Amino acid sequence: MHTRLRVELGARSYWIHIAPGGLAKIGAAMTETFGAAKRTLVVTNEVVAPLYLDCVLGSLQEAGWEAHACVLPDGEQEKTVQRWGEVIDALMELRLARDEPLVALGGGVIGDLAGFAAATYRRGIPYVQVPTTLLAQVDSSVGGKTAVNHPLGKNMIGAFHQPQLVWMDPRTLRTLPARELRAGFAEVVKYGLIRDAALFAWLEQHAEEVLGLADEALVHAIAASCRNKAEIVARDEREAGERALLNLGHTFGHALERLVGYGQWLHGEAVAVGMRMAARLSRLLGLCDEEPEKRLCALLERAGLPLVAPRFAWEAWREAMGHDKKAQGTRLRFVLLRGIGKAFVEDAVPEDAVRRVVEELSRA
Amino acid sequence: MHTRLRVELGARSYWIHIAPGGLAKIGAAMTETFGAAKRTLVVTNEVVAPLYLDCVLGSLQEAGWEAHACVLPDGEQEKTVQRWGEVIDALMELRLARDEPLVALGGGVIGDLAGFAAATYRRGIPYVQVPTTLLAQVDSSVGGKTAVNHPLGKNMIGAFHQPQLVWMDPRTLRTLPARELRAGFAEVVKYGLIRDAALFAWLEQHAEEVLGLADEALVHAIAASCRNKAEIVARDEREAGERALLNLGHTFGHALERLVGYGQWLHGEAVAVGMRMAARLSRLLGLCDEEPEKRLCALLERAGLPLVAPRFAWEAWREAMGHDKKAQGTRLRFVLLRGIGKAFVEDAVPEDAVRRVVEELSRA
Repeated sequence: MHTRLRVELGARSYWIHIAPGGLAKIGAAMTETFGAAKRTLVVTNEVVAPLYLDCVLGSLQEAGWEAHACVLPDGEQEKTVQRWGEVIDALMELRLARDEPLVALGGGVIGDLAGFAAATYRRGIPYVQVPTTLLAQVDSSVGGKTAVNHPLGKNMIGAFHQPQLVWMDPRTLRTLPARELRAGFAEVVKYGLIRDAALFAWLEQHAEEVLGLADEALVHAIAASCRNKAEIVARDEREAGERALLNLGHTFGHALERLVGYGQWLHGEAVAVGMRMAARLSRLLGLCDEEPEKRLCALLERAGLPLVAPRFAWEAWREAMGHDKKAQGTRLRFVLLRGIGKAFVEDAVPEDAVRRVVEELSRA
Repeated sequence: MHTRLRVELGARSYWIHIAPGGLAKIGAAMTETFGAAKRTLVVTNEVVAPLYLDCVLGSLQEAGWEAHACVLPDGEQEKTVQRWGEVIDALMELRLARDEPLVALGGGVIGDLAGFAAATYRRGIPYVQVPTTLLAQVDSSVGGKTAVNHPLGKNMIGAFHQPQLVWMDPRTLRTLPARELRAGFAEVVKYGLIRDAALFAWLEQHAEEVLGLADEALVHAIAASCRNKAEIVARDEREAGERALLNLGHTFGHALERLVGYGQWLHGEAVAVGMRMAARLSRLLGLCDEEPEKRLCALLERAGLPLVAPRFAWEAWREAMGHDKKAQGTRLRFVLLRGIGKAFVEDAVPEDAVRRVVEELSRA
């Protein structure tokens, strides 16, 4: 069931491996990737470390690696310049060389933060993504976006720096809280909606198997997601165009996260509502009929994901979507749908349509 | 006399301009480079600001730019993560967009630090190098190396991020302390020694004109240096091979800077002695006759640069060159010469030859 995919980026190409039970084999995989066992620093957090750090360090040592660990506190609020500085300090103390890799073991926060340390230590060293959440496995571990947050904005400090290997074990999801699993599922649905109608239809057949963590279904869902992401990234590494499609549901979703207060909703939960809003907006604009929204809602509901937002004043939505308060009646940029699997970027969406969607899909 | 050179790096190619009196024309140059006047942040320091900031801001505003300034304290000791964070804060407060450039106005410290801010704000925004020291004009402003220092090592935190324009006015050197001018001259000599015998011979004819800041001679010396650097960088952007030649004299030089205490010697002064040591080492190893060292010393002497090091114990040199104290009798990596303009990297230099050179070229 071990599946692998290639991200084609010329000299920066790399393999994604999806292997149930594969965590204990990471040492051999890294030796194959880097030619020989060397030294490495495994960066993880206090929640993941007790679950998986020994397994990873043991596998590395067995394969001849000199493996060190750096354990950070858990949580989005730790994705800071200060924590990045701690990883840099650990790298400096080890004097890790330019050809010795870092390993990011954890969810999206660890991947982004440790990836940014790898991007900036000695102007860039190789790194390996070992994502342990569904969201990280299907999204943030692939594509080379690394970052930390600034007090005035999320992900505002970072770099594009591709990993040299992405090594995923879907069985790590067995320790993931159910709510986080469902939130990650929303991102899988997103790939179907954007550009993969076959994946969407497959999810309609197999949602419960995926959410029940059946190995085969998980490998299929993760591999299909990563294949879509890898194809998009290969064509638009630095987000100049097509990569923007990955933001389907995110203009609404980010605004919603902000409105309810960061940390109240999971990112995937907000994206679920955001995707529904994008589908409704597309219908309102006459781009598609009601089928995409209907099928989307049915699927999201089976995963226990929210379908409507709490009520907020339109002005608050507007501001949360980052619009200048002074500029009234402007035309906005959204990812819209011509159908399931047919997303595109539209730069001139009339504001009143957006307002109508938000008001229709907010709970009284 | 306005001269321009292209650094060929595919999609990351850019122009270097060398224009006496050109500082007051930077606004128009930036509009040409970026297509239209936008917003920009000029990063500089407290020494350069009183001399040139008004001129730069005035030229930008005249060309329609909304130009803001960020003025940092001067000095190598300010090339820190903390100061980088201040530049990031300034960018965040302005909410500079992904297509709005930063301008680095100053010497190597400002270029490296502001360049690193441009490399990491929003995962990379465009930037313009406006170097005001000879060292920065002939070396650090070209090639895309950005960095700040870590308490445990110089330039250990950084990124490769190419500027979109390098805009040099040699007349800014009129306010540069004479000692810094001479130190920068050592780096010009270095290009002659590495790969440009014609430049070396030209310097032997025109050293006093360059050091006397004659426009025409300066433009020639800077352009020739940048041409050499641009060719090397074009072939080896990320320092995997040929770019290592630029380290001629630097193994000895960095060790010397460390031994005398950072800040006591200027980088170029230490590199001057280091180049002489590399020439002597090459002769000892039978790679060339005494001519390179002789001509090099004659040229460095005319610029008032040092030719010998203070005396330190060999063990101190060894450690300062970064060698493991435990590994005795190892073979070391140096850039050596087969003649003037004929440098190459040698990975297996016997330690006793290095020791002999250091002892011969230290003052009693």
